[in-house]
Amino acid sequence: MTTTRCRTLGALLFPEFELLDVFGPLEAFGNLFVRDKFRVLTIGTTAGPVASAQGPQAIAEYGLDDCPPLDLLLVPGGMGTRREVDNETVLAWLRARAADAEIVMSVCTGASLLARAGLLDGLAATTNKRAFDWVVAQGPRVEWRRRARWVDAGKLVTSSGVSAGTDMALAVIARLVDEETAEQVSRIMEWTRHRDPNEDPFARES
Amino acid sequence: MTTTRCRTLGALLFPEFELLDVFGPLEAFGNLFVRDKFRVLTIGTTAGPVASAQGPQAIAEYGLDDCPPLDLLLVPGGMGTRREVDNETVLAWLRARAADAEIVMSVCTGASLLARAGLLDGLAATTNKRAFDWVVAQGPRVEWRRRARWVDAGKLVTSSGVSAGTDMALAVIARLVDEETAEQVSRIMEWTRHRDPNEDPFARES
Repeated sequence: MTTTRCRTLGALLFPEFELLDVFGPLEAFGNLFVRDKFRVLTIGTTAGPVASAQGPQAIAEYGLDDCPPLDLLLVPGGMGTRREVDNETVLAWLRARAADAEIVMSVCTGASLLARAGLLDGLAATTNKRAFDWVVAQGPRVEWRRRARWVDAGKLVTSSGVSAGTDMALAVIARLVDEETAEQVSRIMEWTRHRDPNEDPFARES
Repeated sequence: MTTTRCRTLGALLFPEFELLDVFGPLEAFGNLFVRDKFRVLTIGTTAGPVASAQGPQAIAEYGLDDCPPLDLLLVPGGMGTRREVDNETVLAWLRARAADAEIVMSVCTGASLLARAGLLDGLAATTNKRAFDWVVAQGPRVEWRRRARWVDAGKLVTSSGVSAGTDMALAVIARLVDEETAEQVSRIMEWTRHRDPNEDPFARES
């Protein structure tokens, strides 16, 4: 592990992506304090504006075909996942990019796309609590965990709903850089951090 | 108070705005559960892409001159506030829009813009802990509170750093709709919520 290397993180955007699933983790990875360690970019099916599930639009800086090599990949959830699970272009891209990536992360129902791409087969994973059964149906060979803030299965790291993605991001920063740095980022964000992946106050909602 | 009226919330974007300052609150106000109660839009100096402090760009749907009437106004922080405090066009717009608004909110160093516009004079307010002294210098007639997750001064509601904005947003939803709705939104977001505006675990950081 080197703490000086700058890794490129790409966040996948698709119509009706969940705002905080993307911008919580990007706030952490894009933080001033780790600017020399992570380069953050956004990717759509094609480059250009993409509307979130909440309405506001973000810009996909790259399309699937022209995006640079990615060390880290972030897949958000949101209502749009219902369409994207059947989007073979996106699933094939996820498979190809995951093969070359160091870590692939999902937030919330973003796990459905990783599951349908076959990337979670045989691994432990989690997803949000409101659409748990739908996501589980997308990956019958995944070892789904209903009670987890996030699950670190090594290369594949999946988080529970929305805000859990930011705790996962901080845990990945701790793993790739160090815990002190993750804690500094979390304090700058004034983020009330969950440090234990198994502490899940929202599991009762399922 | 009516719980059925749909209010329009506009979030101001400027170059180097802080990602989570905007998209945490918009995740809450744009939530499926309150979609009939809040319409969420983004505003820039002119309509078009605006780059955040973290890199990713969002689209300003409207410019200052063509944006529709706003019931609620959200002003984020970020490094860009250092430039915008001297932007008389933005300050004049804030004064004009605040006059017609029901609630004006700021997150983090966004309070510096409200202070420089004179909107916080004589009122209690807070801001983030890392740039507290700089923000305080922008509003010598403001009653700054160093220990507060957010301060509800009626029409003007200011929050502490970054993530505190989302707790403020949930508190404003509770005030305008009801507490049960705010709690539902917070649970859907799997957000570990601060309910007490005076509970501020990050105040020691100042």
